[in-house]
Amino acid sequence: MHTPKHKIAVIGGGSWATANVKILTDNTTDKEIFWWMRNAGAVEHIHKFRHNPNYLSSVEIGVPAKNVSTNLKAIIEQADYLLLNVPAAFLKEAFTGITPADLAGKKIVSAIKGIVPDENQIIGEFLNQHYNVPFSHFLVISGPCHAEEVALEKLSYLTIASRDTALAAEFAGMFNNRYIKTIISDDIYGTEYGAVLKNIYAIASGICHGVGYGDNFQAVLISNAIRELERFVAAVHPINRDIKESAYLGDLLVTAYSQFSRNRTFGNMIGKGYTVKSAQLEMNMIAEGYYAVNCLHQVNKQYKVHMPICTAVYAILYQKQSPALEMKHLAEELS
Amino acid sequence: MHTPKHKIAVIGGGSWATANVKILTDNTTDKEIFWWMRNAGAVEHIHKFRHNPNYLSSVEIGVPAKNVSTNLKAIIEQADYLLLNVPAAFLKEAFTGITPADLAGKKIVSAIKGIVPDENQIIGEFLNQHYNVPFSHFLVISGPCHAEEVALEKLSYLTIASRDTALAAEFAGMFNNRYIKTIISDDIYGTEYGAVLKNIYAIASGICHGVGYGDNFQAVLISNAIRELERFVAAVHPINRDIKESAYLGDLLVTAYSQFSRNRTFGNMIGKGYTVKSAQLEMNMIAEGYYAVNCLHQVNKQYKVHMPICTAVYAILYQKQSPALEMKHLAEELS
Repeated sequence: MHTPKHKIAVIGGGSWATANVKILTDNTTDKEIFWWMRNAGAVEHIHKFRHNPNYLSSVEIGVPAKNVSTNLKAIIEQADYLLLNVPAAFLKEAFTGITPADLAGKKIVSAIKGIVPDENQIIGEFLNQHYNVPFSHFLVISGPCHAEEVALEKLSYLTIASRDTALAAEFAGMFNNRYIKTIISDDIYGTEYGAVLKNIYAIASGICHGVGYGDNFQAVLISNAIRELERFVAAVHPINRDIKESAYLGDLLVTAYSQFSRNRTFGNMIGKGYTVKSAQLEMNMIAEGYYAVNCLHQVNKQYKVHMPICTAVYAILYQKQSPALEMKHLAEELS
Repeated sequence: MHTPKHKIAVIGGGSWATANVKILTDNTTDKEIFWWMRNAGAVEHIHKFRHNPNYLSSVEIGVPAKNVSTNLKAIIEQADYLLLNVPAAFLKEAFTGITPADLAGKKIVSAIKGIVPDENQIIGEFLNQHYNVPFSHFLVISGPCHAEEVALEKLSYLTIASRDTALAAEFAGMFNNRYIKTIISDDIYGTEYGAVLKNIYAIASGICHGVGYGDNFQAVLISNAIRELERFVAAVHPINRDIKESAYLGDLLVTAYSQFSRNRTFGNMIGKGYTVKSAQLEMNMIAEGYYAVNCLHQVNKQYKVHMPICTAVYAILYQKQSPALEMKHLAEELS
């Protein structure tokens, strides 16, 4: 019996997870794909109809039915690569019952864009400290990449980062395909924090739009946002990086400007006067930047980087400040 | 009789000229405003109805009728500041009959985003070499700023650049108002070339959209474009600048992403298969990037900067290469 070289488990059932399953399936190198999601109804639907009923439902799922399951421990056991795709806010819950021993020797790729709440750690730090995952086994995958465009097979570029760039290249070899190009990086911190902060800036961008600012202001906001992001990652992990690369600036742009961005949509509703709760109910989706800005606020107590945009979003979402007044105040600080 | 401290003449009748007239009028410092445009019918309409019939026609014109004229020499004679607002391709024609003596002692602000054809010079160089305008009397004004949003009084940030930053500050004092914030810079070359190149990148962005690329690719394109722009201005005028500032990155973003950008619209039509001629006829407006990419191509023969995006746009617009094939080729070079 043929044993494929690598066994990759996608952990999570959302749109980005579904996109990653499609990307891996459309890559032609030899490997076996597993898929875990919590929702038993969705798993049953996929077993029967080979489509995820809830996300990117146009995508035909090429993973064998026996490999799609709600049993996380069993899925993890069979894989050598785990591709994490659950929201940061639910990672701890999803990992209930999983022990460091279960993850021993596994290579873990985070496609999560977020900070683990309470811990206020990026995924790499969290797995390292709580599950003994060595940084040499840890990878990050980052856009600019909306899942919706993966479903449409629109050409997209993904950055795979790891301290071990040979490992990043190995994973990239199983991930690129006719519509996905991969870029290798060794900057885990910059890539993770970039992916986190861009969601906050997308919320800021949506708020500004909702409050009534136009495209001219938006351009100034984003050109300030990339400088704020650069200051922050330079403080957290000072290496020589070009913040204008696709994983940082590109990822910010696609999120802040795209029609698909749920963070921007969430911000827009806040700017138009929705409460946080009513916006979340209406969207029926998590805007990760909502959690991220709170975590970032905590993390930045240590670094004390000047971050007027994040501060304004935090004040609006967590301190009930008026979006219009906060943005007017922010406008005075931009250049 | 009261003599205002400064007399400013706006030269040109298009939408950005009209926006600048409005900005100057809504600034409350003491000054007299003059306005030249070629179109006698438009001047007559403004005299009668106080609205420009062709551009931003919702804007009420606050310039006294006697100060709006088709006589360029007479207008120039009365002003100490000239604010140039004609397309670069028509500057020479507009200046027919104007001599270096006419411009002696005048401070000249270029709001033109383009290179003078044949000469292949930015406006500052052209005025310096052909009209003896010293660089100490020369200023550049740059966005991110769509004229349409000025008409709507949406908050916008403009950069005023001059070798003499005190002069830039003096002009800024007559230009900022309740919806315009000004930023001072000493980087004439970077600001001028930034304004020129962004139009080319907006065409590239439109072509990609027209050919069928999505938002993910667009974000990669723009993150490559700002790096290409940085390489070019570093070669032409190597000073210490942060290309992520509003005058460079912000200006690129507003043009490449905004619905108002005529360069992006032009590119989109090219990507969809229109010829250059039919796209120009349909739009009834000049896409300045069309001329700019040709001039840039000539200028870069001297600097030989690696500019794959500009090269692709040049090949499509001037060498009849297929938009789809050129962009596919370009995609291989992006990262």
